Amino acid sequence: MNLDGIFPPITTPFDSSGALAADKLRHNIARYNPTGIAGYVVAGSTGESVLLSRNEIEELWEVAAGAAAPGMTLIAGTGVDSTAETISRTKRAAELGYHVALVKTPYYYKPQMNADVLAEHYLRVADAARIPLLIYSVPQFTGISVTAAQVARLAQHSNIIGIKESSGNVLLAGEIVAATPSEFKTLVGSAGTLFASVGAGAIGGILAVACFLPEACVELHRAARAGEMKRAQELQRTLLPAATVVVSKLGISGVKYAMDQVGYYGGPPRRPLLPLGEAPKKEVDAVLAGLAQAAAAK
Amino acid sequence: MNLDGIFPPITTPFDSSGALAADKLRHNIARYNPTGIAGYVVAGSTGESVLLSRNEIEELWEVAAGAAAPGMTLIAGTGVDSTAETISRTKRAAELGYHVALVKTPYYYKPQMNADVLAEHYLRVADAARIPLLIYSVPQFTGISVTAAQVARLAQHSNIIGIKESSGNVLLAGEIVAATPSEFKTLVGSAGTLFASVGAGAIGGILAVACFLPEACVELHRAARAGEMKRAQELQRTLLPAATVVVSKLGISGVKYAMDQVGYYGGPPRRPLLPLGEAPKKEVDAVLAGLAQAAAAK
Amino acid sequence: MNLDGIFPPITTPFDSSGALAADKLRHNIARYNPTGIAGYVVAGSTGESVLLSRNEIEELWEVAAGAAAPGMTLIAGTGVDSTAETISRTKRAAELGYHVALVKTPYYYKPQMNADVLAEHYLRVADAARIPLLIYSVPQFTGISVTAAQVARLAQHSNIIGIKESSGNVLLAGEIVAATPSEFKTLVGSAGTLFASVGAGAIGGILAVACFLPEACVELHRAARAGEMKRAQELQRTLLPAATVVVSKLGISGVKYAMDQVGYYGGPPRRPLLPLGEAPKKEVDAVLAGLAQAAAAK
Amino acid sequence: MNLDGIFPPITTPFDSSGALAADKLRHNIARYNPTGIAGYVVAGSTGESVLLSRNEIEELWEVAAGAAAPGMTLIAGTGVDSTAETISRTKRAAELGYHVALVKTPYYYKPQMNADVLAEHYLRVADAARIPLLIYSVPQFTGISVTAAQVARLAQHSNIIGIKESSGNVLLAGEIVAATPSEFKTLVGSAGTLFASVGAGAIGGILAVACFLPEACVELHRAARAGEMKRAQELQRTLLPAATVVVSKLGISGVKYAMDQVGYYGGPPRRPLLPLGEAPKKEVDAVLAGLAQAAAAK
Repeated sequence: MNLDGIFPPITTPFDSSGALAADKLRHNIARYNPTGIAGYVVAGSTGESVLLSRNEIEELWEVAAGAAAPGMTLIAGTGVDSTAETISRTKRAAELGYHVALVKTPYYYKPQMNADVLAEHYLRVADAARIPLLIYSVPQFTGISVTAAQVARLAQHSNIIGIKESSGNVLLAGEIVAATPSEFKTLVGSAGTLFASVGAGAIGGILAVACFLPEACVELHRAARAGEMKRAQELQRTLLPAATVVVSKLGISGVKYAMDQVGYYGGPPRRPLLPLGEAPKKEVDAVLAGLAQAAAAK
Repeated sequence: MNLDGIFPPITTPFDSSGALAADKLRHNIARYNPTGIAGYVVAGSTGESVLLSRNEIEELWEVAAGAAAPGMTLIAGTGVDSTAETISRTKRAAELGYHVALVKTPYYYKPQMNADVLAEHYLRVADAARIPLLIYSVPQFTGISVTAAQVARLAQHSNIIGIKESSGNVLLAGEIVAATPSEFKTLVGSAGTLFASVGAGAIGGILAVACFLPEACVELHRAARAGEMKRAQELQRTLLPAATVVVSKLGISGVKYAMDQVGYYGGPPRRPLLPLGEAPKKEVDAVLAGLAQAAAAK
Repeated sequence: MNLDGIFPPITTPFDSSGALAADKLRHNIARYNPTGIAGYVVAGSTGESVLLSRNEIEELWEVAAGAAAPGMTLIAGTGVDSTAETISRTKRAAELGYHVALVKTPYYYKPQMNADVLAEHYLRVADAARIPLLIYSVPQFTGISVTAAQVARLAQHSNIIGIKESSGNVLLAGEIVAATPSEFKTLVGSAGTLFASVGAGAIGGILAVACFLPEACVELHRAARAGEMKRAQELQRTLLPAATVVVSKLGISGVKYAMDQVGYYGGPPRRPLLPLGEAPKKEVDAVLAGLAQAAAAK
Repeated sequence: MNLDGIFPPITTPFDSSGALAADKLRHNIARYNPTGIAGYVVAGSTGESVLLSRNEIEELWEVAAGAAAPGMTLIAGTGVDSTAETISRTKRAAELGYHVALVKTPYYYKPQMNADVLAEHYLRVADAARIPLLIYSVPQFTGISVTAAQVARLAQHSNIIGIKESSGNVLLAGEIVAATPSEFKTLVGSAGTLFASVGAGAIGGILAVACFLPEACVELHRAARAGEMKRAQELQRTLLPAATVVVSKLGISGVKYAMDQVGYYGGPPRRPLLPLGEAPKKEVDAVLAGLAQAAAAK
């Protein structure tokens, strides 16, 4: 199982009636397979997991696992607010062949989500799981942050093998790396700071940008890991607008629209998310045109 | 259908195995029925709705509706992130005899939850629903706030009849009252500012404090609505620690423990929520002792 | 010395060259004197104190004290980040006849402004001062909030006699009233929640709205203190847009423009604050027209 | 004038009576001069500028300028809330030989500090100044953030030559670099993300850590600028606790105590800041011991 690389947190394709479109998912994965990515995250935040039923998530897991090339590391987004349901989903993901579970911090009852409650949740899930866990911290969606000290405490459990830290806070990534054993794996979720995060000790990235630009993310990761600083800087700067405009500002609707422009199937998001209007579409078009120009200039 | 009053957002009782305890729910409702409350909120935030399966929620709705005394207004918490699932739940609640649906702001994809996305969500649900809706804003859990202007826009839909505003922001309650037609109903979710909110034009309260102190909440509401300022001030001050310590600080675990102390069935919360430790139990005990003392002093 | 009433935190008039206009200040105070206010706050936040030199502040104190009618309670804004400078200003204000010093929480070094640092600051100033202090909490400007427990700790000092709490948080006002002795005086700084705050136990208000609508604020305060709930509700609702639009949204520039429309001298703010543009002017005009209409309707 | 390097934002030494200790300042600067730093920031946030009188600041500027070695770039912290006072201070700093003015965002009247107000402030100061300006954004103290678009707008003024961005947000640093012309200079204020920020295109650092560890900061900056990724990573990780514990957590009191331990004069901070207690002193001791150990290990 390899976590040193780039993982697209794949989007969930819906057809025009709003139903899961398994064929489109297979189409996308067939295109992702040869791009150099290390694997897939299925039913993560970018996969609209909170808008899917449990049945739909299981179907998604099955289809994606079946379509992924051999050797791909399969990561299932299994975390929900309920500890018991998180355990149940993690168990099912393991049955379906997933190698790792990505377990989001529980978040709804924010004032009560103190260090002890979070630790109990993770330790329970880690005890019950037959596959290893990645902690998943995504404060822009959950409103819950983790500290390096909290992560270090959880890293003592043999079944908690790493973290996906999605805040984009490079200092925190560095603090987590410094506070945890060398075998603990820090991945990040922000493409705009991937190079900086690798510099701070992160080994990989689960990046929504990789849903529409997998090769560019893979090459940035490679250059950063190889210490090719000038090359990494240049690639990082090129990718910046894809991260800030398409992903952070426009969200899943932006990612899906961008996928549609470059040969993947994006399709509509599920409500309450709305498809992009004309003005945001032009913003995405401009970002993609800028990237094409940068590529041509080389 | 009467919204001018106090509604306990009833807790969901679990037995020692963690399963729904329908008999305990009936026991609690039998005790609430004669307290002067106007009705029930079933499967709201205090009901641990985000920790329940859809099946459990439907069972909860059925049992509660069956146990409620005639004349009680029945409000179902039906809002989740997905618009389609919210519509489906609202439909089911109507079938089960609920009079009103309490529809939480969608919240996971926070950066995209702008005024247009929220409006589309509510208008879709309102169009599809066979019962009227209350908007439910609870930023302490969702991280999403609504403005008076947003509420005024939604209030134009004939099937959106009011709001439960749970932030405790009295200014906002007043702004909402001022910005909406007189038939639009503003309820609040914070017992610590109930009197102030009624002063600002709110007509009722959906109060976790009412899960363990229904009579006191009812009397405070009555005095405030009657303009008995001195009486309302005194009752409000008495209730303050129940709101700030038991509900805001200790959350559902605090509410359930307090219920256990005064003759209701509280029982354990569902994980990740943890039962109160010894120190917080003493805090609740002290609050309840203070209330008993205040009652005896009269 | 009377703190049970309304205090305008008077604006600082500048002439067209940007210099202090003492004659305009006298003109304003002559108009305020017979309005029923309890006194003046001079060199507070609305007085642009952070944009004035120490010399200008002393001149302001002198002119205002000389112009105030006998019996007015004179409150000097003396708080700055430095403890020593706060003591020096408080001493000077006492020499100039001020009855009370309004001492803002120090705020620049936010991460270090813990309860102990704040307590030391206030106790030092209180020990050194020859006049009593009001704590001044204004998180919308300082980013520093106080808790009821912190206030209760400071209230034990005989020279700290009260607080001006400006956040508009009615729950906090109630908590402070509950946590402090009955002789400790809680004043608030938000006109939009004055009635609610009096209901929660506050005795007075230091209100920027009183800079251009002193009589209306005085009447609202009187009705609220007298327990005339219907009257207070009606006045509160009428004043709401003056508080939310003119003061909170448009700030000192809005207050000064409103003063100019109703017979006081507002004049320009000092930079970086900019005079209102045409659109915000119209917003203020609409608020004032609405108030005039409400007055005429009675 | 060279901004490509490390600048300690020097602390202001006070003697035991609390007065400015010019001799201690000269002692510190004599020790800093040969460390490889590019210059000095005098009267910045770490210099306790908000706790100093105008006279003290001028004395500080004079003494520091006189003690600095030839060739050092001298940067004066001149920004305060008032535009006029900022202009006056900037003029005086120029007279005293300073090469650059560091102009903090005005911040007290936060709700009014919109893009237009900030732009007007900076353009006025830039027009009036005889030396070039660096924008200074330090949201942890001011509560005011700048966006890359705002910076790009200001960068069009020929006298606004760069920015010190102190939030530690590496993504923002990269966005600013991308949004501004190549001659615009981005410096950062967070030692814990210096390497990452240089990777994102920043050219220098104004680092409180450099007040007690100038050589280490200089070497980290050199390695990062030279593209020596492994070396820079290693140095960055070594410096992390100095940044997070001594500077961010303990503030100026921590910096001054650390200076005292390594041969500089730190001395007491000015109130309301309090000297470190015993427990925080041990935290600093541990950080310094860790750094000594790391140095010895090489």
